[in-house]
Amino acid sequence: GLDSRGFLFGPSLAQELGLGCVLVRKRGKLPGPTVSASYTLEYGKAELEIQRDALEPGQKVVVVDDLLATGGTMRAACELLSQLQAEVLECVSLVELTSLKGREKLAPVPFFSLLQ
Amino acid sequence: GLDSRGFLFGPSLAQELGLGCVLVRKRGKLPGPTVSASYTLEYGKAELEIQRDALEPGQKVVVVDDLLATGGTMRAACELLSQLQAEVLECVSLVELTSLKGREKLAPVPFFSLLQ
Repeated sequence: GLDSRGFLFGPSLAQELGLGCVLVRKRGKLPGPTVSASYTLEYGKAELEIQRDALEPGQKVVVVDDLLATGGTMRAACELLSQLQAEVLECVSLVELTSLKGREKLAPVPFFSLLQ
Repeated sequence: GLDSRGFLFGPSLAQELGLGCVLVRKRGKLPGPTVSASYTLEYGKAELEIQRDALEPGQKVVVVDDLLATGGTMRAACELLSQLQAEVLECVSLVELTSLKGREKLAPVPFFSLLQ
């Protein structure tokens, strides 16, 4: 689940599937050792963080957010998860702005959205 | 659900109960007309917002967050909801730091927490 509107969907999805939910947060929000990845916004840059011990190497994850636009945030989340050697099975969002071709930025990770 | 860790619990709780979930967000995050309430943090002030048409007058709500500390954030959320003439039945959190007596700040609204 990605900070913060991904938090609206990640936990419900995880609970429905009987799985755990790990938080990817904006910089400075998580306690303890973290790893970070920066990404480009419309104006400037931002950084995502995950706790270093949030996942074991090889653990399988699905990345959840509300919206895929340019894909920058989602790709940064994938980079974070690679740093932890987690295996990203898929990225999902409720809404996809297809004209921005964000899913191309995520390849070869599969991407799924409910509304285009 | 309160921005942003309340988002981890509010939607799941609402779904379990078959109810809707309304977002109370930090300043500047919500589109359209909003109402706002400010509250005091350890250093300085912050502001919460809700969309003006998020609730009808008289609608019953439960306010959900992850943690009750001093109660400032939760109380600001109650003030917002009063501005919309919603009826706050209860405030709930996963964790309550009882030594900070946050629940006294919420009275007469009942408060419930799972862990103290």
